[in-house]
Amino acid sequence: MILYDANAPGPNPATVRLFVHERGGLRFDVVTIDLVGLENRKRRYLTEVNARGEVPALRLDDGSVLTEITAICGYFDEIAEGGRKLFGTTPQERAVIHMWTRRAYLEVVLPFVNHWRGSEAAENAYRGHRILQPEAQRSNRLLAERGLNQFDDDLEGRTFIAGDDISMADILLYTFMATQIEGEGTPWLDVPQRPHVGAWYARMGERESSRMMLASLPARVRT
Amino acid sequence: MILYDANAPGPNPATVRLFVHERGGLRFDVVTIDLVGLENRKRRYLTEVNARGEVPALRLDDGSVLTEITAICGYFDEIAEGGRKLFGTTPQERAVIHMWTRRAYLEVVLPFVNHWRGSEAAENAYRGHRILQPEAQRSNRLLAERGLNQFDDDLEGRTFIAGDDISMADILLYTFMATQIEGEGTPWLDVPQRPHVGAWYARMGERESSRMMLASLPARVRT
Repeated sequence: MILYDANAPGPNPATVRLFVHERGGLRFDVVTIDLVGLENRKRRYLTEVNARGEVPALRLDDGSVLTEITAICGYFDEIAEGGRKLFGTTPQERAVIHMWTRRAYLEVVLPFVNHWRGSEAAENAYRGHRILQPEAQRSNRLLAERGLNQFDDDLEGRTFIAGDDISMADILLYTFMATQIEGEGTPWLDVPQRPHVGAWYARMGERESSRMMLASLPARVRT
Repeated sequence: MILYDANAPGPNPATVRLFVHERGGLRFDVVTIDLVGLENRKRRYLTEVNARGEVPALRLDDGSVLTEITAICGYFDEIAEGGRKLFGTTPQERAVIHMWTRRAYLEVVLPFVNHWRGSEAAENAYRGHRILQPEAQRSNRLLAERGLNQFDDDLEGRTFIAGDDISMADILLYTFMATQIEGEGTPWLDVPQRPHVGAWYARMGERESSRMMLASLPARVRT
């Protein structure tokens, strides 16, 4: 297998890296795509890897290519040897983790990414390769903050989002928060008004896997 | 099990109904929530069923409640007796269907729902219970149309979105398109400029399961 990874602070590749560190038991080759140089939007990448121009992507042994971070991580979760499953081990566990992962993505991650996509930094990063929505930047922040308020209630008395054990939902939400707080500077993501999100965020940051993921980011993001 | 379903043309409950018809082998009780009367936003529903006020929701035998349509359908897919699985039967099939389901949702369904949420009809339906983004209505249509253009390329030479067999991805995309085309009137969803999407849409509409789903909608949506 080949994982097309990136040299940039993009939260999507970082999510897969954090998953791989946390999951263990996975072996694959890595090809690094120059996201900053928009190599992923050039004809060659679009033709040979992913017509949608997204990174990461996973080339399977039969030559087909898998994209979408939760699909890649879900596949990894099934084929990894040993370690601890991060998508659950029973139908009910899998459904509950699926539910929390989708809530985290739709209620917090996506509006928050769309908020960033309303910025001038996003225009300079995408250079016309994506339809951005600067007109919705303020309402996207409002949606993301509202999502975080809900998660603060949800996390009261819990160690991780889906219960006692870490799962894909934690990996997804933490990576997007961490790469942006450490990188672009989004001070409203981690604030004292949401103590349970804050305690969970600190707990996630103490993990060896999180440190490895953060250390893999370009230097400007870590300082 | 109890499925909290709705008396309204909401595409989320309709997606689960189409899934159930197509999947077969499922038994549960149904409680109908008055979505038009916003029963799902009242304290009782928020406290006893779903703090997020969403319908559908599935109460499991242990009393816990599952939400998020893809999580509910995924759970149903695992526990149904007999029939044909709609989330795949091998790790690779499951990952490919997961990928296509997420693409359909993020690239078409969500921008298109957000487009609707920018309308006056949405303001009258939600009555302040959701942050709407009317300022992004035009760019949301552009995003949804662009997503449909990509799916038109993807569907060339294919019977269903993920390959030869119907899957969750078809059920999700079809239900959102069908309930809106038949109901609210969104003429740009099915147009001759996207012949492969059009052929797939017609194919989906001919299925007995789709007819049953459409027949379950309130009359004003079907006329």
